[in-house]
Amino acid sequence: MAKQLTKREDDYSQWYNELVVKAGLAEHSDVRGCMVIKPYGYAIWENMKAVLDKMFKDTGHVNAAFPLLIPKSYLSKEASHVEGFAKECAVVTHYRLKNDPDGNGVIVDPEAKLEEELIIRPTSETIIWHTYKNWIQSYRDLPLLINQWANVMRWEMRTRLFLRTSEFFWQEGHTAHATKSEAVEESEKMLNVYSTFMEEYMGVPVIKGSKSESEKFAGAETTYTTEAIMQDGKALQMGTSHFLGQNFAKAFDVTFQTEKGDREFVWATSWGVSTRLMGALVMAHSDDEGLVLPPKLAPIHVAIVPIFKGEDQLSIINEKVNPIIEALKAKGIKVKYDNDDQKRPGFKFAEYELKGVPIRLAIGQRDIENGTIEVARRDTKEKSTQSFEGIENYVETLLDEIQTNIYNKALTCREGFYSTANSYDEMKDILENKGGFVLANWDGTEETEEKIKEETKATIRCIPLDGVEVDGNCIYSNNPAKHKVLFAKAY
Amino acid sequence: MAKQLTKREDDYSQWYNELVVKAGLAEHSDVRGCMVIKPYGYAIWENMKAVLDKMFKDTGHVNAAFPLLIPKSYLSKEASHVEGFAKECAVVTHYRLKNDPDGNGVIVDPEAKLEEELIIRPTSETIIWHTYKNWIQSYRDLPLLINQWANVMRWEMRTRLFLRTSEFFWQEGHTAHATKSEAVEESEKMLNVYSTFMEEYMGVPVIKGSKSESEKFAGAETTYTTEAIMQDGKALQMGTSHFLGQNFAKAFDVTFQTEKGDREFVWATSWGVSTRLMGALVMAHSDDEGLVLPPKLAPIHVAIVPIFKGEDQLSIINEKVNPIIEALKAKGIKVKYDNDDQKRPGFKFAEYELKGVPIRLAIGQRDIENGTIEVARRDTKEKSTQSFEGIENYVETLLDEIQTNIYNKALTCREGFYSTANSYDEMKDILENKGGFVLANWDGTEETEEKIKEETKATIRCIPLDGVEVDGNCIYSNNPAKHKVLFAKAY
Repeated sequence: MAKQLTKREDDYSQWYNELVVKAGLAEHSDVRGCMVIKPYGYAIWENMKAVLDKMFKDTGHVNAAFPLLIPKSYLSKEASHVEGFAKECAVVTHYRLKNDPDGNGVIVDPEAKLEEELIIRPTSETIIWHTYKNWIQSYRDLPLLINQWANVMRWEMRTRLFLRTSEFFWQEGHTAHATKSEAVEESEKMLNVYSTFMEEYMGVPVIKGSKSESEKFAGAETTYTTEAIMQDGKALQMGTSHFLGQNFAKAFDVTFQTEKGDREFVWATSWGVSTRLMGALVMAHSDDEGLVLPPKLAPIHVAIVPIFKGEDQLSIINEKVNPIIEALKAKGIKVKYDNDDQKRPGFKFAEYELKGVPIRLAIGQRDIENGTIEVARRDTKEKSTQSFEGIENYVETLLDEIQTNIYNKALTCREGFYSTANSYDEMKDILENKGGFVLANWDGTEETEEKIKEETKATIRCIPLDGVEVDGNCIYSNNPAKHKVLFAKAY
Repeated sequence: MAKQLTKREDDYSQWYNELVVKAGLAEHSDVRGCMVIKPYGYAIWENMKAVLDKMFKDTGHVNAAFPLLIPKSYLSKEASHVEGFAKECAVVTHYRLKNDPDGNGVIVDPEAKLEEELIIRPTSETIIWHTYKNWIQSYRDLPLLINQWANVMRWEMRTRLFLRTSEFFWQEGHTAHATKSEAVEESEKMLNVYSTFMEEYMGVPVIKGSKSESEKFAGAETTYTTEAIMQDGKALQMGTSHFLGQNFAKAFDVTFQTEKGDREFVWATSWGVSTRLMGALVMAHSDDEGLVLPPKLAPIHVAIVPIFKGEDQLSIINEKVNPIIEALKAKGIKVKYDNDDQKRPGFKFAEYELKGVPIRLAIGQRDIENGTIEVARRDTKEKSTQSFEGIENYVETLLDEIQTNIYNKALTCREGFYSTANSYDEMKDILENKGGFVLANWDGTEETEEKIKEETKATIRCIPLDGVEVDGNCIYSNNPAKHKVLFAKAY
């Protein structure tokens, strides 16, 4: 068994780093900032992908694949995109190695220099809109509702597993529309798809809002965001959906013939969530014993551990348990029966706790006699003895209950981390002593936003969409407020 | 409707290139050798992935993700790997762009040069075995049965959509075992998984065999292969499975403690299939009118086209057809009901033919009166009139029949392209005038293999596994034959 985790209250950041590695989710590779996603972590990501992919398809989207590499010059085509986007990209300059004439392995062949350097995509708007130019001629070609599951790369200086890595995995939707209203509607629709996924599957409550000018995506007219709070009171941006206006259509000259026969520029959206969600999932629910996974995304729902001495006892338990395994599987419940005789039950209990398996069943000689089985919930750590008969139904109901409970717990946590500040001093006090979101009046200027960020390290997470009415003056400048916004320190 | 395709007999290669583009499978991007996989093509690839992924999981494998970039020095660690592997790789040398001080977009920041260059993975043995070193300590950590779905890059000079592209998509399995026999068994098992997939899902018969020394994977002890024949008589390598011996374990120092307490090097396999299979699927079955897709991989099984004049007729047909659509969907059959009133039925027929939809149903006023529906098979182009009642059962059975027929047709084609040569002249004659596989005696030397390749352009596709007994002399050198092998010109 791995050594104990650092406790959250001692060092939340260290707790997270240890947990991701010890639970077998991911680890750092030797390549700067690139992670290895280990099988258990990848199984969770696969579950996320499967749910999201179905939601995208149910809303009319199809998948495609665009090139990994982007000609450097494409990045310059949309002025605010290149201006605002980080320049930290992996640059491919050569296309061949050769044997070192001195016999020291391989070297880059200086003869094989590219005429134009290629960038490993940090995001794909430019290459996709370059491609769409050929795909879109008429209103009949619209809307174009395409998603891509891909790896992207941003050369990050300070990395953390899942939360910020140089290479990461994501999906990026890129849609093209005939009208502004349809594109705005699409960007809002996908924001809602994201929030549904985050709340109903990940069990993480989110606040939907739009970003301020300075925080929005480079090239977007509006960036919508879903913001969550972690157990340490820091905010995490979960996913964003952008209404891109006609910016990329103009940059890449993508026009279409309208029904009336005019030519107009196409309207666009893009939207994405990434393996960062894995980090959110870990941070939102887990505890000092390990992961706590919502059943809807857990690779294993139920671990069954037999308590036995010797072959005979085991074979009696096996015989008893096998029909239950089948009954659970028939309900779509993923079961792991761990009858490995080389490991002690206590070791197994700790392991499934660390791995966040929602339910653990244990059955021993006494249970066989009594027709019972021990049920342990991962989320509340409650144990109870249940009748063996019909246990599959009990487990099925309990999984739903755990899913709900995990969400409610995260919601309670979020509510505790949601404050309102009527003055700048009050906000600073909350940010310093309590953390979490602080709702406050803002005058809408970048200057105020910047000053608050400098002084408190809190940023405007979003202008909430739920229509909080603004009234009064900016807590910083005392000028009339333009928006009520949520400030927080963020990941 | 797109213009007619070039006919196969006029120019098979041109026919293929046109078909891939016109059927909406893929197109070339502006980035040298990198393709865009369009939604319809990607939907087929997704179906392939789903089936293969399930087969891998059913045989005990799990997925993970390893870095896209590999330090250059890793490639040199396994001597025969670096010796034999092509050096045409995309090389990342810098990690930042900056604004051009002259105002011309962005330039590579010369300050941001990497200490060690990174290669975009052409395959991942090196980085994976570097990682496995930390994962494997004891026999208890074995076997390690991991697969990765990934994009890889090999800087190809002459590219063809799907068949040979610089960036391509694949899966690469990398397994680690305690014993040689277990690793050999694994490499054979995955070869069989591949051939089952190719025959039962793709409808492409394959010959299983091992590669000659000169054709095997750089770093492998044995490379197993599945070889198919296309309609033009050229062979296509469909997928390979490698027994890697202890080569990578030794190169990356991966040892384990045995049950007895000794330390031994780990045994390895790797195996992969790629988007090349998309090319095989197109070439194996399609005809001069377009794609012919096996039902088990087709994104749409049935296209239903109403023949109508005016709203009233259409609404009667809609009402009649809707329950059938539901009945088909309930059977897991993917239906497209195309009641677009802006396109003529003939246009739609040609489009579904081009796209290889296995069954097209058409229903008009007369059919409504007669209680009938027209059924057109894509594979045989047969049309028949069937009773409307119970059509969903007819379609279900017909899809199975089409799947079988497509395979049988490809098998007949392959049998026609399978010859035996008893002399070099005979082989040259077959290769020149007929094409296909030629079974012939080979002395086992690289010299003979090389000469035959030079003179005929045919390579040894494989030494068949089905135990063809060798007897007599090499057709080229007249020395005693070592193997009966299959020669062919190949893609």
